[in-house]
Amino acid sequence: MISYPNKKKSQNKINIPHANRGMNLEKILNETNQYYLDNNMAVIHKKPTPIQVVKIDYEQNTKIVDAYFQKPSTTDYNGVYKGKYIDFEAKETQSKTSFALNNISTHQAKHLEKVIEQSGIAFLIIYFVLHNEFYFLDAKILIDFYHNEKRKSIPYEFIKKEGHLLRQGYIPRIDYLSIIDEIYLK
Amino acid sequence: MISYPNKKKSQNKINIPHANRGMNLEKILNETNQYYLDNNMAVIHKKPTPIQVVKIDYEQNTKIVDAYFQKPSTTDYNGVYKGKYIDFEAKETQSKTSFALNNISTHQAKHLEKVIEQSGIAFLIIYFVLHNEFYFLDAKILIDFYHNEKRKSIPYEFIKKEGHLLRQGYIPRIDYLSIIDEIYLK
Repeated sequence: MISYPNKKKSQNKINIPHANRGMNLEKILNETNQYYLDNNMAVIHKKPTPIQVVKIDYEQNTKIVDAYFQKPSTTDYNGVYKGKYIDFEAKETQSKTSFALNNISTHQAKHLEKVIEQSGIAFLIIYFVLHNEFYFLDAKILIDFYHNEKRKSIPYEFIKKEGHLLRQGYIPRIDYLSIIDEIYLK
Repeated sequence: MISYPNKKKSQNKINIPHANRGMNLEKILNETNQYYLDNNMAVIHKKPTPIQVVKIDYEQNTKIVDAYFQKPSTTDYNGVYKGKYIDFEAKETQSKTSFALNNISTHQAKHLEKVIEQSGIAFLIIYFVLHNEFYFLDAKILIDFYHNEKRKSIPYEFIKKEGHLLRQGYIPRIDYLSIIDEIYLK
């Protein structure tokens, strides 16, 4: 059987609804978090990107003229919901079949593990772009896979079964607080 | 009576114990938080400084060549302790008599107010450099002063009475978790 990679790619694109095409996960989450904030539902923010500043020009209005992006040692999002500490990392993948563990750095996995030890609510939001599905996955599952040295990825079918599909809407874009209510606060 | 500003300044300096001389509050808190983290007591980090990136040189190893510091819209520190959400801002003041409210931006005050509404634990750590005293002050007190339009500062004597003096030690440098235990988790 002959494969047509270009054609296949084009077909995959057709499956992505127009509303989310070109939308990145960060924007979707920022809009969702802003909605939660505006409606006094939760206070959850994306942390600023860590940047190592090498040189500042004080004569040019404290302009940074030499700096580099650093790898985050913790996760991108944290905050508070009903008194509980919320902590998560959000990643999108172009794979249809699995979520590669190297999407999450060792530092980030250790951070999530420590949050769980402190009874915080820790999870991942994984966006399978080609399925146009967002999953909520308890960080404990990630940690288990991380500690299993034979594993390099979490299968999509496993995430589908053990994770929670996030309902997509206009506002909030993906309502992950409803999942937190369901699995942690019942 | 003739005042000797230079002499007075020099006398104040003598009152600061050698260990903390030249130490900044951020370093003290980072060491304290690292101690809490290493001993599995809490997971509390300083957020990265927000920087607006204007221009990146991709030919020079993704070097940032034009960027500016941004005013933080939230607080510097947050994390989790015994499942509870912890959020605070740390400031030092050279004043002996009061803590000026303009040390905390309107955005930061609003953020602390929202954290309180979500039942998070929100506070300030104020370092009175010339007294060499660190105080833990519940953010509710800051918010009250913020909403009182006649007030431009919180008097030192008021903070001494309504706040909690933080014990200084070698490690942790200032043990603020013990105050949290005492006033929120009893």
